[in-house]
Amino acid sequence: MTKKINGALGGIKVLDLTRVLAGPFSTMMLADMGAEVIKIEIPGKGDDSRQFGPFKNGESSYYMNLNRNKKGITLNLKSQRGKEVFLELVKKADVVMENYRPGTMEKLGIGYEKLKKVNPRLVYGCVSGFGHYGPYKDRAGYDIIGQAMGGLMSTTGWPDGEPTRTGTAMGDVLAGLSVTIGVLSALRYRDVTGIGQKVDVSLVDSVVASLEIINQIYLVDGKIPQRIGNRYESVYPYDSFKAKNGSLVIGCGNDKLWSKLCDVMDNAELASDERYDKNPKRVALNKDVKKIVERWTLTKSVDELIDVMLNAGIPCAPINNIEQVVKDPHIADAREMFVEVEHPNAGKIKITGSHIKLYETKPYIKTPSPTLGEHNNYVLKEYLNYCDEEINELYENNII
Amino acid sequence: MTKKINGALGGIKVLDLTRVLAGPFSTMMLADMGAEVIKIEIPGKGDDSRQFGPFKNGESSYYMNLNRNKKGITLNLKSQRGKEVFLELVKKADVVMENYRPGTMEKLGIGYEKLKKVNPRLVYGCVSGFGHYGPYKDRAGYDIIGQAMGGLMSTTGWPDGEPTRTGTAMGDVLAGLSVTIGVLSALRYRDVTGIGQKVDVSLVDSVVASLEIINQIYLVDGKIPQRIGNRYESVYPYDSFKAKNGSLVIGCGNDKLWSKLCDVMDNAELASDERYDKNPKRVALNKDVKKIVERWTLTKSVDELIDVMLNAGIPCAPINNIEQVVKDPHIADAREMFVEVEHPNAGKIKITGSHIKLYETKPYIKTPSPTLGEHNNYVLKEYLNYCDEEINELYENNII
Repeated sequence: MTKKINGALGGIKVLDLTRVLAGPFSTMMLADMGAEVIKIEIPGKGDDSRQFGPFKNGESSYYMNLNRNKKGITLNLKSQRGKEVFLELVKKADVVMENYRPGTMEKLGIGYEKLKKVNPRLVYGCVSGFGHYGPYKDRAGYDIIGQAMGGLMSTTGWPDGEPTRTGTAMGDVLAGLSVTIGVLSALRYRDVTGIGQKVDVSLVDSVVASLEIINQIYLVDGKIPQRIGNRYESVYPYDSFKAKNGSLVIGCGNDKLWSKLCDVMDNAELASDERYDKNPKRVALNKDVKKIVERWTLTKSVDELIDVMLNAGIPCAPINNIEQVVKDPHIADAREMFVEVEHPNAGKIKITGSHIKLYETKPYIKTPSPTLGEHNNYVLKEYLNYCDEEINELYENNII
Repeated sequence: MTKKINGALGGIKVLDLTRVLAGPFSTMMLADMGAEVIKIEIPGKGDDSRQFGPFKNGESSYYMNLNRNKKGITLNLKSQRGKEVFLELVKKADVVMENYRPGTMEKLGIGYEKLKKVNPRLVYGCVSGFGHYGPYKDRAGYDIIGQAMGGLMSTTGWPDGEPTRTGTAMGDVLAGLSVTIGVLSALRYRDVTGIGQKVDVSLVDSVVASLEIINQIYLVDGKIPQRIGNRYESVYPYDSFKAKNGSLVIGCGNDKLWSKLCDVMDNAELASDERYDKNPKRVALNKDVKKIVERWTLTKSVDELIDVMLNAGIPCAPINNIEQVVKDPHIADAREMFVEVEHPNAGKIKITGSHIKLYETKPYIKTPSPTLGEHNNYVLKEYLNYCDEEINELYENNII
């Protein structure tokens, strides 16, 4: 069997009702890998994030980044005719994705049970703050809610400081990645058995799942993990350290790396010091170890330190700001993490590239994000065989 | 076609060479969804994380959490006979996963190009600090390296404070989720075309991809995003606020929610105040808005505030510590995010449940993590039809 398709997910059709971040981040990855993603927006208004800056020529780069490679249609799902069109599209789709508050689709009369009747092979992915069952299911859940309730904020920050939100919408990102995994797995089950299903991912659950050893510390030892700054609970030295002209991070994951670090610090005595020779001892005495290492790092510049440590095979890195990330030859050039796309209104703009590198079916950015309703004609003709007259009628009645 | 399989990924066979966190987190999700994951460890030693606390009856809960549902074998990949056994297993596998430093598999003589010849349908997933190409590819990359180099630390924390590491190994978690997406997509492509491929995910790329609007602020406006504490760049009020007895978070994602918040604060004047009526104005004047809202939140307890705001439909949440998360009726009970498993040595232990809720093929924890080499006999007999004599020979020669 040798059959070429366009992208790893070529041929998969996704109806995308998601807005703002978690859902669009998921369907963005599907689109980058070749799925045909049809984003459905409210006529005349569109996704809320079309209003989020920064803007280029009046176009939201927030929206342009997360919705590249997608096709865009408008559809009024509150109208009877709009629902009919949606259900006709569902018959042709492999996946429906949404990130409404649980119950919203049911109120519209197009909940999963209804869609399943129309298309039993459908995979239905949904992202919400708290998930589609459980006592808090009706609560709205933005990213900060997920980070706070899931315990992530309580463990991010400094011993003497406040609980701290991670500097990106990490709850949304984690949920977007997770629902993608669920949907792809459900598609595989559908391909084998013919049976579709619902995939329910919440921001809070996704944050909880990300806490790995943090949860275990409480579950096993009954200790409540605290904010411990930049170090890690399980290994040391694994922390940030002050240099002459800034800070850097060093990650010595095992005893061999510790001994290498003692070598580059020219501290043979330390290497043989039994107080620090095993990782659990260094974790327990992390404050002392930090002082010892910092006494050395403070004598050199960040660049000097990184040079000498990389040469010795010791994991370390500068703490890049975003400008340094965007200009980094490895990240930006070799790994193509920032990609130019030409948008009809915004002109040329750089957005974040795909980070999932498939060697045979390389994900790439083929098209900019859609303007509002850009693909109404294409989708209604291609998927539903509508004629111009029918499409005009939909426009006239504000259905699309 | 109606064919029932055990779990969404039932029938998928994964050879798992991964250690510690990013890789094992990925294969854990595959195993939770029904894939047969065979973890391959060094004879007599095993995964480094078997030495990471907290321990129960001498067993690492770090390891037990990330390796549940997997089968475990030992295999000395440095020996010729060990490589032969591995290549025989590769012929029967759908997926090989590894998180060695790039080049390690090639040095062992079992790099992707070799495995591809043995099994052209193979999907080869790899996680590393910097990816398998690019100038930094040979650098070791632990989580903290990814968080530092990818820009996440530079935007996490407080305006007057230091760059801050997110309080879990988020770089590893993001990469683990992302490689899972890549592998599942590649499996789908393999099912359609018969062609396997390599999936290359790095910690640094995964962190960069998580920064959504943060990157756009620099790419479009040329401004370097700074640490801004708990607020979000795009909407306000969306922040933490001090109450009488602690803090909580409020997330007003749009103007309607702002007007609801003015209502519950009993501040009709504020609702009509044109300085704050639109989201971009509130983002610009976030310091003033914080003061106004905090004047109110400081008069009540966290519980009182949450009650009154949830009743009014305003997104808000307590900032849970891990004990509160583990005891939460929604997270722990309804969503089953902490699950008991019985381990032969550790006895009953709670670990983190699966956060990807598939309704037709519910992921669940069937078996505890393997003891070292627990499934040597099973795998060698079942996959390779070895007899007891052959297996004993492998033991005697320290191959397994």
